[in-house]
Amino acid sequence: MNFCSHCGDTVSFVIPEGDDRPRYRCHSCETIHYQNPRIVAGTLPVFGSQVLLCRRAIAPRLGYWTLPAGYMENAETTRQAAARETREEACAEVSLCNLYTLIDLPHINQVYMIFRADLLGDFAAGVESLEVALFEEHDIPWDELAFPTIERTLRHYYADRQHGMFPLHVSEITQEDRERYFGSA
Amino acid sequence: MNFCSHCGDTVSFVIPEGDDRPRYRCHSCETIHYQNPRIVAGTLPVFGSQVLLCRRAIAPRLGYWTLPAGYMENAETTRQAAARETREEACAEVSLCNLYTLIDLPHINQVYMIFRADLLGDFAAGVESLEVALFEEHDIPWDELAFPTIERTLRHYYADRQHGMFPLHVSEITQEDRERYFGSA
Repeated sequence: MNFCSHCGDTVSFVIPEGDDRPRYRCHSCETIHYQNPRIVAGTLPVFGSQVLLCRRAIAPRLGYWTLPAGYMENAETTRQAAARETREEACAEVSLCNLYTLIDLPHINQVYMIFRADLLGDFAAGVESLEVALFEEHDIPWDELAFPTIERTLRHYYADRQHGMFPLHVSEITQEDRERYFGSA
Repeated sequence: MNFCSHCGDTVSFVIPEGDDRPRYRCHSCETIHYQNPRIVAGTLPVFGSQVLLCRRAIAPRLGYWTLPAGYMENAETTRQAAARETREEACAEVSLCNLYTLIDLPHINQVYMIFRADLLGDFAAGVESLEVALFEEHDIPWDELAFPTIERTLRHYYADRQHGMFPLHVSEITQEDRERYFGSA
């Protein structure tokens, strides 16, 4: 950030009075521009014993497999965001179940929220997907998953499925987790 | 938003190619400035049969009672944000339990995430609080709560406490809920 989005003057990165961390503040109108984490909402679509995955047609991680998920937009709920992303990336309608994984990624200012969902009917590749397919557990392309959040969500799912209980899992992916993941991919 | 925070030129509110909703886009460097919902993280601090509330020293809703909560910052986790807000507003340390309420407020682009927590030791009014106090259920100032998210979280808590089970509650507060709430306050 170099300029104030309100008045167009330059900004400084300073600690405002009464605050405890640096913010971008305008030299002229003194607007403080707060920056906050973004929510990535998505689903784990299940059809019988199978799980739906999408192969990414866009960077980052083009060609790798992912669950349908993306940035939550203003004016929608987390559940609406998760269903919309599933519609956009997999042309699929789902019936949402519970919030299943909540994963903090503080090094990239993201919070993943993946809802377990029942896949209803057909699916196809949306514009951001090269292909969309259903996978049995033994066919999951573990070495070709796009992000550590996706691997973690799938690992929880297959562990929980043995007991038929799917509680919310809250966890964190650190910078070190991320480097280990992409280093081995 | 009037100016590009990257290069300082003016922006238009237009639907970018391949997108489905208007965004602020720079006339010069063509940077698209996405805007996304913000997370409000907080806690429901419990001490024996009592719940801790803070009376707000700042707008909005100055003088009304709330649970300690505030905007999640970059570079922290949701749990760290909830604990930090509790420390800042109530000078209190807590041991976090489960994520207890997840409340979407799409009309103001917020997502509330309140964690149930055990209060550890002392507390006092932080700079954003006029006072901080413990309340028994029959003393909760229902007509002087700051926000509908706070009332909803407390209602869930007292209902759940009868059974000793505190599952995550996912819900939405609509514009109409909000108007009804502030209209009657």
